[in-house]
Amino acid sequence: MKVRLEKVKGTRDMLPEEMAKRRWVFERIREVFERYNFHEVLTPTFEYTTLFQLRSGEEVVEQLYAFDDKGGRNLSLRPDMTSSVARLYVNSFQNAAKPIKWYYIANMFRYEEPQSGRFREFWQAGVELIGSDRVEADAEVIALFTESYLATGLEDFTVNIGDRVLLDEFARMLGVTDDVGLMRLIDKKDKLSKEDFVGALKEFGLGEDGIEKVLALIEIRGKPDEVLPKAEELFTSEKAKEEIKRLYELVDLLDAYGVTDRILIDLGIARGFDYYTSVVFEAIAPNDLGIGSIGGGGRYDNLIEIFGGKPTPATGFAIGIERLIPILEWKSLIPEPKLRADVYVIPIGRESALRKTAVEIVSAIRRAGVKADVELTGRKLRKALDYAGKLGIPYVVLVGRKDLQEGKVTVRDMETGEQKAVEKERVVEELRRLLGS
Amino acid sequence: MKVRLEKVKGTRDMLPEEMAKRRWVFERIREVFERYNFHEVLTPTFEYTTLFQLRSGEEVVEQLYAFDDKGGRNLSLRPDMTSSVARLYVNSFQNAAKPIKWYYIANMFRYEEPQSGRFREFWQAGVELIGSDRVEADAEVIALFTESYLATGLEDFTVNIGDRVLLDEFARMLGVTDDVGLMRLIDKKDKLSKEDFVGALKEFGLGEDGIEKVLALIEIRGKPDEVLPKAEELFTSEKAKEEIKRLYELVDLLDAYGVTDRILIDLGIARGFDYYTSVVFEAIAPNDLGIGSIGGGGRYDNLIEIFGGKPTPATGFAIGIERLIPILEWKSLIPEPKLRADVYVIPIGRESALRKTAVEIVSAIRRAGVKADVELTGRKLRKALDYAGKLGIPYVVLVGRKDLQEGKVTVRDMETGEQKAVEKERVVEELRRLLGS
Repeated sequence: MKVRLEKVKGTRDMLPEEMAKRRWVFERIREVFERYNFHEVLTPTFEYTTLFQLRSGEEVVEQLYAFDDKGGRNLSLRPDMTSSVARLYVNSFQNAAKPIKWYYIANMFRYEEPQSGRFREFWQAGVELIGSDRVEADAEVIALFTESYLATGLEDFTVNIGDRVLLDEFARMLGVTDDVGLMRLIDKKDKLSKEDFVGALKEFGLGEDGIEKVLALIEIRGKPDEVLPKAEELFTSEKAKEEIKRLYELVDLLDAYGVTDRILIDLGIARGFDYYTSVVFEAIAPNDLGIGSIGGGGRYDNLIEIFGGKPTPATGFAIGIERLIPILEWKSLIPEPKLRADVYVIPIGRESALRKTAVEIVSAIRRAGVKADVELTGRKLRKALDYAGKLGIPYVVLVGRKDLQEGKVTVRDMETGEQKAVEKERVVEELRRLLGS
Repeated sequence: MKVRLEKVKGTRDMLPEEMAKRRWVFERIREVFERYNFHEVLTPTFEYTTLFQLRSGEEVVEQLYAFDDKGGRNLSLRPDMTSSVARLYVNSFQNAAKPIKWYYIANMFRYEEPQSGRFREFWQAGVELIGSDRVEADAEVIALFTESYLATGLEDFTVNIGDRVLLDEFARMLGVTDDVGLMRLIDKKDKLSKEDFVGALKEFGLGEDGIEKVLALIEIRGKPDEVLPKAEELFTSEKAKEEIKRLYELVDLLDAYGVTDRILIDLGIARGFDYYTSVVFEAIAPNDLGIGSIGGGGRYDNLIEIFGGKPTPATGFAIGIERLIPILEWKSLIPEPKLRADVYVIPIGRESALRKTAVEIVSAIRRAGVKADVELTGRKLRKALDYAGKLGIPYVVLVGRKDLQEGKVTVRDMETGEQKAVEKERVVEELRRLLGS
C-alpha cells in the first residue's frame, strides 16, 4: 500500500512555536469573554448534514465536508458553530434563565480554495447571546467583539456595522425580488472596480435609478454621526426609519462601552450567512497580507424557530483565528514564546548510578517548578553540550563519577562556560538562585 | 427538509461546567508536560486514509471515519495522534536535534459502540518522544505518564508495564505463528472467566503445555521485584533475557523518578495498536463506573521507517480524557468551577440615560478585572433581581433616575438584602472592597 505522506491540501501542521503563540492569543480572548460573563461550550465536530443545510446559505452548503458514517447517517463536519449552538439550545436550554451567554474556541471545516488566511480546517473564537431581542444585547456583543481584538494588542482596526433589515427594505424599494442575489452582489462591492460593479448591477437587471440608489447605499460608510443622517435621507419606509433609530441607539450604547472609536457604519455589508436578520458587523484590520475580514457576526432572530424551537432572538460573532494571527504576527504583537528548558542534566557515562543520580536531580528541579530536561539518548558529553548550546539552554548540570564520590555535581553556565561544583542536595537551590526564580 | 435535531450517536455536547472542569484537568496535565520540556503540536483533524491503514491495527482501521472529499481524496478523521505525529516528523523533522519531545491535547474519532467512558469523538492528552532507543527515554515517558495523573489529584491508580518483545518471544516459544492473534487473546484475559479463557486458548490451537505457559505468563503480574524473577524462569532465550534486563533497568530509573510506588509489571498486556515494538504500559484506576484503562502507551521503533523515514526509535503515551474525568469526578477531585458573575448591573427603566450609565458602570467594573454582567433583556426590576438571585450573583448595582440625579447608584448585597447608595465614580472601589479583590 502506498502511504500518502503529505498533509491534505488546505490543512496545516501547527508546530510548538505557533501553538504557544496561538495559546497566548486564545488566552487573551478567553479572558475578555469570561469577564463579560460568557461561558465556554463545545459541540461535536460533526452533526447531521441537514442541520447545516437548512440555514447556512448556499455557499456554505456547497463547501460542506459531508459523508456517510458506518451506520448510514449522513454527517458533516461543522462549517461554523452557530447552527450547532442553536441545536444545543433547542435540545436542552429552552427553559433556562435568559439570556444565555456562551462562547467557544473551536475548529471548523469548509471545502474552499485555500488562500492567504483561508484554510480548509480553521479555528474560530466566538460567542452567542441567546434570548434578548434588545439593542442592548447587540451592543454588548459588538463591544465584546471590539474588546477581544484590543486584548490581543491590535489597535489598527475598525468594526463595520451594516443592517439586514435596511438591505431588505432597500431591495423592496428597488422592486428587486431576488433580494439574496442583490445582497450577494453588494457584498462583493470591494472586490470589483466601480465599472465592473455597475456592469454587474446592470446584468442583475437594475435600471439607472436603481444603480444610482445602490451607489448611494454603498456610500453610506463612515463615522456613525456622519453617515446615519444620509441613511435617513435614502430610506423612506417606516420600517427602515425604525431600524435606523435602532442603529442610533446602538451607537449610543457603544459609546458608553468606550469602543466607539473603532465603529463605522457600512450599509453595504451583508455577510455571507443567510441566517442574519438585523444588525451585521465585521472587523477589518488594514494589512499587506491580502487578508480581508478578521471576524464578524450579527443578529439571527429566526434560526432557533427554524430549528423547531420557540421563537428566540439571538446575536453573536466569530473571530477568524487564521485571519487574526498573521496580522498580529506581522505587527509583532505576539510575545516570542520561551520553549527551551532552563536546565539540562547530563550524566557523564552510562553507569547506572550516574544515570539514576541524573534522573533524581532532574526530578528535583522539575518539582521546584523549573522546566528541565535530562539526557536521554546516551550520547557523549561533547554532543550533549552541543545540543544544549544549540537549543540555548542556559544551565547544564554534569553528573560525573569523581564529583559524585564527594557527593557533588557540577553546574555549568552555558553562556560564560563557568563551572562550579555544588553539593548534590543543594543543586536545586543553586539553580533557582542562578535563574532568579 | 426535515432537520435532524438530535446530536449524533456517540457524541456529546459539553456545557460550561464540564468545559471549565476539563480545562482544569488539561491545565494540570499541560503544566507537567511542559515541566518535562515537551512542546505542544497540533496536526490536521483529517489525513489521507492510507496513513492510518498502514500500521494502526485491524480494529482501528475498521473503526475509521473515512470519506471522499469534494476533490476525490480519500480521507479519515484521526483515530489517534501517533500516526499523524510520525508523518509530521518524516515530513519536516528528520534533521532536527534529537530527541524531539512533543505533546498534544486533541480530539480523536472512532466508530465504536458507545459505552461508559467511550465515545465516538473523544479527547486525548499525549506525548511522543522521538529519536532515542534508550531505556532512559522509556523511563522519562512512563514517569511523566504517572506524574500526569498525580497532577490531577488521582492517587489510587497503577501503571502496568508489559513488553512486546517478551510476548513475541513467548509466541515463538509456543510455536505459535499467529502471534498477533495470540496477543489479542491474551489482551482479553481480564474480560473472560478463567474457564472461558482456557477454552479460547484451546480453540486457538494450544496444547496443554502451551495453555499452562500462558497461564504462567499472565501470572507474571505484580511488584517488579516480585515478578521479574518469575519472568527470568519462564523465558529462556537470549533475546528475552536481554529484554528482561532492560525491564530491570527501567524499574531502577523509575525509582529515581520517584514514581515506583505505582508501577506494576504485567506481562499479559499487549495493547491494541500493532505498532508497538517493546515496552507497553497502561494506567488502571479502580472504579465503580465500568471504566478500564485510563491511558496507555509504549515504544514504537518501526513506525517512522514504515512511513518512509530513516529508522528512528520513538516512545509515547496517550491519556484518555473521557476515561480519566469521570473517575476524577467520582472521587470529587475536580474543584467546582465558579461560573456566575460577581456583579450584575440593572438599569431601573428603559430611559437611554439609565441604560448608558448601566453600561458605563459594567464596563468600569470589567476593566477592573471583575466578572460582571448588565441587564440585556429590558425586563422589569423584580424579574431582573429574581434572575440574579437564581444565578447566585452576590452583588447587584441598581441604576435609578433619582439616585442618578445625585450622581449616585445603589449597591445591593443579594444575600442580606442590604442596600447602600454609592457615588457613581466610587462604585468600582466599593465593589472591590465588598468582593475582597
